[in-house]
Amino acid sequence: MAYLNENYLKLQAGYLFPEVGRRVREFCEAHPEGAKRLIRCGIGDVTEPLPPAAIGAMKRAMDELGQRESFRGYGPEQGYEFLRSTIARHDYRDRNIEIADDEIFVSDGSKNDCGYVLDILGGQNKVAVPDPVYPVYVDTNVMAGRTGTVRQDGSYEGICYLACTAENKFVPEPPQEHVDVVYLCFPNNPTGAVASRQQLDHWVDYAREHDVLLLFDAAYEAYISDPEIPRSIFEIPGALECAIELRSFSKNGGFTGVRCGFTVMPKSVLARTASGRRLPLHPLWQRRWSTKSNSVAYPVQRGAEALYSAEGRKQVRALIAHYMGNAKVLRDAAFEAGLEAFGGVNAPYIWVKTPNGLTSWELFDRMLRELNVVITPGAGFGAQGEGYFRISAFNSRENAEEVARRVKNIRSS
Amino acid sequence: MAYLNENYLKLQAGYLFPEVGRRVREFCEAHPEGAKRLIRCGIGDVTEPLPPAAIGAMKRAMDELGQRESFRGYGPEQGYEFLRSTIARHDYRDRNIEIADDEIFVSDGSKNDCGYVLDILGGQNKVAVPDPVYPVYVDTNVMAGRTGTVRQDGSYEGICYLACTAENKFVPEPPQEHVDVVYLCFPNNPTGAVASRQQLDHWVDYAREHDVLLLFDAAYEAYISDPEIPRSIFEIPGALECAIELRSFSKNGGFTGVRCGFTVMPKSVLARTASGRRLPLHPLWQRRWSTKSNSVAYPVQRGAEALYSAEGRKQVRALIAHYMGNAKVLRDAAFEAGLEAFGGVNAPYIWVKTPNGLTSWELFDRMLRELNVVITPGAGFGAQGEGYFRISAFNSRENAEEVARRVKNIRSS
Repeated sequence: MAYLNENYLKLQAGYLFPEVGRRVREFCEAHPEGAKRLIRCGIGDVTEPLPPAAIGAMKRAMDELGQRESFRGYGPEQGYEFLRSTIARHDYRDRNIEIADDEIFVSDGSKNDCGYVLDILGGQNKVAVPDPVYPVYVDTNVMAGRTGTVRQDGSYEGICYLACTAENKFVPEPPQEHVDVVYLCFPNNPTGAVASRQQLDHWVDYAREHDVLLLFDAAYEAYISDPEIPRSIFEIPGALECAIELRSFSKNGGFTGVRCGFTVMPKSVLARTASGRRLPLHPLWQRRWSTKSNSVAYPVQRGAEALYSAEGRKQVRALIAHYMGNAKVLRDAAFEAGLEAFGGVNAPYIWVKTPNGLTSWELFDRMLRELNVVITPGAGFGAQGEGYFRISAFNSRENAEEVARRVKNIRSS
Repeated sequence: MAYLNENYLKLQAGYLFPEVGRRVREFCEAHPEGAKRLIRCGIGDVTEPLPPAAIGAMKRAMDELGQRESFRGYGPEQGYEFLRSTIARHDYRDRNIEIADDEIFVSDGSKNDCGYVLDILGGQNKVAVPDPVYPVYVDTNVMAGRTGTVRQDGSYEGICYLACTAENKFVPEPPQEHVDVVYLCFPNNPTGAVASRQQLDHWVDYAREHDVLLLFDAAYEAYISDPEIPRSIFEIPGALECAIELRSFSKNGGFTGVRCGFTVMPKSVLARTASGRRLPLHPLWQRRWSTKSNSVAYPVQRGAEALYSAEGRKQVRALIAHYMGNAKVLRDAAFEAGLEAFGGVNAPYIWVKTPNGLTSWELFDRMLRELNVVITPGAGFGAQGEGYFRISAFNSRENAEEVARRVKNIRSS
């Protein structure tokens, strides 16, 4: 009989968001009145329509596929040149970062890339993740066999956790123990923290000194309004030798349901064999895409390209301004309610301390039941998330304002 | 320094189709006149426009994403219920095969699924593949560390190859040695062979008796016109206990550039842990999708659904009839040229013996140079493919007829 991948059996019962979904469904079935009032600030999913520039481009591409003369079948496995060069130019070269077109790899989303990238890395790597953390970083490593079993608090043996706390303003220090790979995510999900240039300098220095690979998740870079905050790890000198960057069109262009993102894999990033040969990762990544994928739908790639047009950029800026307006409303409400709140300035997430010593899931259930508001319990993001919850700014202004009104009653509720 | 996945270093230089592409590019650059006459019958990529039913559905879905009221963000990670139920009903339950909606998992293509499915299987599985074979089955297993190094003839240590030859009409017998997982593909890529009900009965009996998992690739099932030939492994009694089926919308709906397919993972398929526990694979597969993906673009899922509408089915039938008309033209031409040819009846590929004892790549280069026709060299599909080449029927009728004219000169050329 075929063997299964036993690493899957180490995983905890529920991936966070399905578990949130399950509790919400149960509540709605049991409380139809509460269900009607329900506002979701849980999962970080956009709510506003796609930018018209993207829709127009995608529909034109559909029409091309409907004519023999302009029909396209399999595209290049790493993404169309028109999109790779647009990305490399606008996001990097126009900002004085030397990234070549063929260092951009188009994908069906950053979440997916988190899993894919492990494929080219050896099983013996020691991995460090922030805590709290986007659960996908951890779970994909569990599945790949890079961890031991789960502990009582939900952490895994074999992973190095970097505590992100109010004390370090949720920007962790490099670990004391030896690791090979470190995940960083700024603007951060879930804490909404951003890293300064100085802090990222420190991380890149550390990575180069200790020969560590940084997996830098910049899915939320579009939310940075402070010009002093780096939007890419490659703004930091030396990062081209030690970092891979993950980017997404989900949170700028609203592509959560359209699925497109990319990785930046500099040719200068090396990794080693067990015997000590140092080889670039780029050819392995190239091969991963050739063998395992046929890239993303042509119309979707045209839609992503359109986000970089003058019209598209204007529409994206308006979406970001809308969500960041919500963030301000929600953050102010949390302060007014006397809660300790973080983030929500250069990031669409507000990270809030639970009142009265409630656990995250206790608060989740209470907000669901009493305020009919769905948040994400901090404990779902890691042990250090216990005692916190995440409010997402992805909503209509009307809903954000209504949530703000309800949250003001949270302490007395 | 981070470790790389050394299994990638075992891979042979070029994945088949990029290598074909490279030689074609070089030829075109060196011979502009030949480039103008070039006709591609190499890569199995469709050439005709998408069915209007699919385009209409995708454009309507785009419009939905452009309105706040109908906007959708993240969809269910395993695919929308509307598509899963449409597939389960039309492809299975309407044909008296008991497949539940939640046993259908929507993906971004069959090629991709070939890689994904290895994720839930243990590293210690012994794998058998047909020879010749779709290279992705082998290469994904190499990457996953389930093989040793490559031999002179391109085969890998540790993989069991099932010879598909003219003698067994390209339908292999079960192996004598012990294996855990067997890949089967009917209608076959590259040989165009189909398996009879009796032959598949034999395979399912073998799988159940020896506790073997069958990975059944039915990407080309739409090309079967003979009502006696099974279109799904699940038409065979007992297959629900031992098989996973992979399906694609690439070759029926022409979705090669749109990317959508699915796997059928019956809840009754079990696999074992090293200690001998027997567990269903379905929850692992469910978890793989929850953690590693957010499914496929909503408009693409609506497009796939539309292929099952009355209008969509009619349009798909017309596409299949077109390509199978080409297959007849090409097959007849091969016979007229005195070549030994197989397939091309219930499958869009014709598998032809090279004349005059030429190797596959010799014939490839010669057809490229002298006939300006791109075929796929059989040796690219495995050791048993040496001495054969594959002609694809995916083309315009005009091109197919022109290729037929040119091929008639092949022996004397």
